[in-house]
Amino acid sequence: MAERKNDSPVISTLGPRGTFSHEACLKYSPKAKIIFKNTIYNVFESVKNNEADLGIVPVENSTDGTIGMTLDFLVSTGLKIKDEITVKVMHNLAGIENTKLTDIRMLYCHPQAYAQCEEYIRKNIPQAEIIHTSSNSKSSESVANGKDAAKACITTKLASEMYGLKIIEKNIQDYDENNTRFIVLSHNDSEETGRDKTSVAFYTDEDRPGSLYEILGIFAQRKINLAKIESRPNKKVPGRYIFFMDLWGHRKQKDLNDALELLKRTVSGLYIFGSYPRRY
Amino acid sequence: MAERKNDSPVISTLGPRGTFSHEACLKYSPKAKIIFKNTIYNVFESVKNNEADLGIVPVENSTDGTIGMTLDFLVSTGLKIKDEITVKVMHNLAGIENTKLTDIRMLYCHPQAYAQCEEYIRKNIPQAEIIHTSSNSKSSESVANGKDAAKACITTKLASEMYGLKIIEKNIQDYDENNTRFIVLSHNDSEETGRDKTSVAFYTDEDRPGSLYEILGIFAQRKINLAKIESRPNKKVPGRYIFFMDLWGHRKQKDLNDALELLKRTVSGLYIFGSYPRRY
Repeated sequence: MAERKNDSPVISTLGPRGTFSHEACLKYSPKAKIIFKNTIYNVFESVKNNEADLGIVPVENSTDGTIGMTLDFLVSTGLKIKDEITVKVMHNLAGIENTKLTDIRMLYCHPQAYAQCEEYIRKNIPQAEIIHTSSNSKSSESVANGKDAAKACITTKLASEMYGLKIIEKNIQDYDENNTRFIVLSHNDSEETGRDKTSVAFYTDEDRPGSLYEILGIFAQRKINLAKIESRPNKKVPGRYIFFMDLWGHRKQKDLNDALELLKRTVSGLYIFGSYPRRY
Repeated sequence: MAERKNDSPVISTLGPRGTFSHEACLKYSPKAKIIFKNTIYNVFESVKNNEADLGIVPVENSTDGTIGMTLDFLVSTGLKIKDEITVKVMHNLAGIENTKLTDIRMLYCHPQAYAQCEEYIRKNIPQAEIIHTSSNSKSSESVANGKDAAKACITTKLASEMYGLKIIEKNIQDYDENNTRFIVLSHNDSEETGRDKTSVAFYTDEDRPGSLYEILGIFAQRKINLAKIESRPNKKVPGRYIFFMDLWGHRKQKDLNDALELLKRTVSGLYIFGSYPRRY
């Protein structure tokens, strides 16, 4: 089991083949056996019940923000973060042979692909009706089935090739710095490397001015860098928030360990999702 | 023009009819003339070019988190927030007459409706293929057209009635405290009411431990409550973040005005989206 984990782990990710999640798996572990799941929850579950050694799920996109479900499932499943991967997202406009921009009446796209190419679509194919799909592969399939130049899609290079589509225009994303960050799920986090990141979440029972300020002080006084902060509505207590934070350092380092101990005594609930190498 | 704004303003929102956005408009102004747009950007644009007096767009959902595009367009268009509205989100499983849970093979749903009913679907209709659509109305339409008990959808009561569908099970959302918060867009924000909220965003050029801590200190020292904070990747500077914050109080109140002046001198860029009545 330990050998399989090192050499060619079984990794569960969001399918179908050709998604950016698939690409993240290939980047993380080219020799992995990849199993495709249809929801983020199913990826978490397959790691939880040991069907897969690891799971790879999106957690943040530089254009569209945080993927809320991934944060919620970290809290509810208790799984740890073992690593992170970033994938540069490049979107392409694809259709059948000889499709022109002015032909397009229906544009198939995943809602996030749409969000990332919104300006391009508005300027270049304003006449198209937007039809949302559940993946880039589904978008490609919808166009490939029709053989109709009125249909086009936004998709990955990999998925357009899988479905025999022609790329009408490549790299149509509105911002070039368009990365999706994925996390690697496991039962355990990673050992210290000297350049690490630690992800946590916490909530407080009181809602008063300055409580978050005091909490950030715990880290500022120890010169611990805050890489990310986000408040998300607490599903169980209306009007209250859970704070998600990424901190620089490993949880076993003295300063961060001290800070987390103090944080634990300050807040009402603390989740430590683990420490892992900081990749960017 | 001023009279029309008060009595029956022209409000632009996300269509088609039957969406939660439509419901938010009816709640905000029952007599409004409502015009439906197919994207969040188009709603912003219609207010910018005075086609509509006001725009109503979703900004936060208690289950799925912040709607990133709305925050980005606030920054890029310079429009102000005039008010906020919360709508309790109730999802229903709907299909043609006599559809049973075990009949369902294809489930049409908007990605956010799916996120909010994920647990219900997993436990009750695990066999169904999930087909994402761009709105609850589209989901209803897809089922109504087929007359096939293998097809069902997640939709609003309003949209299920519009398409003659039968509700198989009502209120299937995983969490009862499931509200979507909408903002009212305008060229101007609102006057002081004594119970207000102010929305801002800012970024800094330096990325060092404690800079956010110092910024929060500006508000903590003045006992100004922080209602929400979120860092979003800065699209133009990789690895940097823009912070979005909701603060209690009106920007014309002395303490908040002083804090915002100091904030402006501390950060590299500050956007004030306006002050408006705090509704919850």
